[in-house]
Amino acid sequence: MTMSTALLTDHYELTMLQAALRSGAAHRRAVFEVFARHLPGGRRYGVVAGAGRVLDELERFRFGDEELTFLQEHNVVDEPTLAFLAEYRFSGSIHGYREGDLYFPASPIMVVEGTFAEAVLLETLILSVLNHDCAIASAASRMVNAAGKRPIIEMGARRTHEQAAVAAARAAYLAGFSSTSNLQAGRLYGIPTAGTAAHAFTLLHDSEEQAFEAQIATLGPGTTLLVDTYDVREAVRTAVELAGEKLGAVRIDSGDLAAAAQEVREQLDSLGAFHTRILVTSDLDEYAIAALAAAPVDGYGVGTSLVTGSGVPTAALVYKLVARETRTGKLEPVAKRSVGKPSRGGRKQAYRLLNKSDHYETELVTTSGLVPEGGVPLLTEFVREGEIVGREPLAEARARHAEAIARLPQDALHLARGYAAIPTEFA
Amino acid sequence: MTMSTALLTDHYELTMLQAALRSGAAHRRAVFEVFARHLPGGRRYGVVAGAGRVLDELERFRFGDEELTFLQEHNVVDEPTLAFLAEYRFSGSIHGYREGDLYFPASPIMVVEGTFAEAVLLETLILSVLNHDCAIASAASRMVNAAGKRPIIEMGARRTHEQAAVAAARAAYLAGFSSTSNLQAGRLYGIPTAGTAAHAFTLLHDSEEQAFEAQIATLGPGTTLLVDTYDVREAVRTAVELAGEKLGAVRIDSGDLAAAAQEVREQLDSLGAFHTRILVTSDLDEYAIAALAAAPVDGYGVGTSLVTGSGVPTAALVYKLVARETRTGKLEPVAKRSVGKPSRGGRKQAYRLLNKSDHYETELVTTSGLVPEGGVPLLTEFVREGEIVGREPLAEARARHAEAIARLPQDALHLARGYAAIPTEFA
Repeated sequence: MTMSTALLTDHYELTMLQAALRSGAAHRRAVFEVFARHLPGGRRYGVVAGAGRVLDELERFRFGDEELTFLQEHNVVDEPTLAFLAEYRFSGSIHGYREGDLYFPASPIMVVEGTFAEAVLLETLILSVLNHDCAIASAASRMVNAAGKRPIIEMGARRTHEQAAVAAARAAYLAGFSSTSNLQAGRLYGIPTAGTAAHAFTLLHDSEEQAFEAQIATLGPGTTLLVDTYDVREAVRTAVELAGEKLGAVRIDSGDLAAAAQEVREQLDSLGAFHTRILVTSDLDEYAIAALAAAPVDGYGVGTSLVTGSGVPTAALVYKLVARETRTGKLEPVAKRSVGKPSRGGRKQAYRLLNKSDHYETELVTTSGLVPEGGVPLLTEFVREGEIVGREPLAEARARHAEAIARLPQDALHLARGYAAIPTEFA
Repeated sequence: MTMSTALLTDHYELTMLQAALRSGAAHRRAVFEVFARHLPGGRRYGVVAGAGRVLDELERFRFGDEELTFLQEHNVVDEPTLAFLAEYRFSGSIHGYREGDLYFPASPIMVVEGTFAEAVLLETLILSVLNHDCAIASAASRMVNAAGKRPIIEMGARRTHEQAAVAAARAAYLAGFSSTSNLQAGRLYGIPTAGTAAHAFTLLHDSEEQAFEAQIATLGPGTTLLVDTYDVREAVRTAVELAGEKLGAVRIDSGDLAAAAQEVREQLDSLGAFHTRILVTSDLDEYAIAALAAAPVDGYGVGTSLVTGSGVPTAALVYKLVARETRTGKLEPVAKRSVGKPSRGGRKQAYRLLNKSDHYETELVTTSGLVPEGGVPLLTEFVREGEIVGREPLAEARARHAEAIARLPQDALHLARGYAAIPTEFA
């Protein structure tokens, strides 16, 4: 097994390459753009995530011996195409919206320019990464807004593909989650990891008291004890008896969380454990989090709904050829004339226009080259002549997202289904 | 980057290990079981998929220097725990339902036995694989049933995480899809790959005719031409002019597919291309496939809805401690007493009972050791004392699934929401 990403690609990208090499059109300059025709699920904004991962995977997009042997033995492409692939290095340019920024319908969140041959090959991989990561980050951002200042731990690894889980933790952190249960996400991306114990740990011991004792002995009284294996009230009493007022937190994972949190808070206070925090988990999504706003909860753990995009597991992003070189060497806009699938030809620029109070007002997408006064340019350079120039620390994307959310019109944060928070205009 | 799967694990598995090593309970024998409390989405049956991947990933579940260094530097666990992890090899046993078989609420689809320490560590990884793969296979099976004898190509890579896409293609093939667009799935699992061209290929050329010519020249007249970039009727005429009656297929990717297929069939027949097949794609799911049953369609391509589980992206499988050794060395059933989350203690056996016409009648889950007369045992041995013994070719799982579907009561194949096709009984 190699770490090449080259075969994370649809068969037809390679047959198109073969046919275009044969027709000679493969070497025409081409512009592909990634955009969403709409925001699925009635979302009011999308969150850009995954660009950093695209760059990581682009570096490993190489057809080595193993990949070429597979393609040859299975007659996927002919010999001239195999020769092209053996030498393949993306030598074009990629611009895109920065991670953590927002996007709206038709925002050109990634623009890939090169020959047709080199740009078409990246379609599947770029869409896989962006469709997944943007969907997760967009859901995560709503949860973070619903949680207000309370932290959210991402803990969805077990509910999604094992590698998707790592990317989901990254997208969630970028959108404002405080930590993740996923150790590989901690290792790869430096995200703080968290977690203490499951019900199995309590069930393993001969009594809940023995389990709590064992946990406190090794993780200290500041640990989080899971209190709903048997009886919550008894568990809380035992927990405070054993850990004292320094008990870090208790976690409740079942039942009516609002009512349970209220009871537990009163009990903790009555026992003098005023600073012991209450964490809740159990099928939370942004709506459940919002419904707990008035409950004495200090933090949330979110799993399933985060990694599945809370009803929107994929971002509906497409990768479309918008311009290509003609026989005469001119770059010409192109677009499919399709039923019900709007798309606009021509290489785009994008700007965000702000109102007088510095809030976002309009997403301006233009093919004219005109730069609007006061407009914030949204496309940044990721790849220049094949060289990756657009890397940044994840913390920057995270900070950018928080700033972007603060500039949205207030009604953009409503959880109900709606329209895009700002209109997209074309010039 | 290493290929170890050991950090695809939740932080709390390791802190539980640490605390259990400290309390001494880590070395107690334990039985964990994977099961679904319900079939989400009103599905009537679930499809087992992922066990083969679990075995592949179990082999690579090793804490090497890189993993241990991360855990040490980030103070995830203490020195005795690091020492345990460095030597970690799963030495217990795993039994499970075979891939392609069906499951129902409470079916113990995987049973992991070992010490608590060695079995608890596998929770996250096993659930990630099974929750993803079972969800995809369960959706895929419904699509295959809806398609009848018509083949379905899996083409959802671009709509999900790039590695999840590979596993999704595997799950879809296991459930009866005929091929995949995903080259990596072809390479890793031997699944036939398919695909010819996208709209970009037509747009790249100066005319549709030139694009079709180029494609036919290199892929032969038996290729599939995409006919809806501009005008379908013109495209079909051009396609048959260029490829003749030997034109393999045309693909329609937009519009009212039933009406378009009807028109294209009539046109193809009028041009003498009686054997040219019609493939349709464009946001198909099991319902859309079923709605096309009467249309002259020869094959389907399914993307988004397959890789997102057609509304059920995760299978709601849990991994629960059901028995553990007591201080006196006896294996004792355990279960959380939780609100609204039923689970049953004790190591299970499972059998499927058939009626007189050899159709499935009952899923029998028992802790008694009693073997029901004529019951088909459902648990097979995957791992014996740490050694993997349960590998099988993917083709066997695929054949098993087709056989299992044939033994379901007929109403199990209704697409509408409903209850489990057969009841689960406990003995």
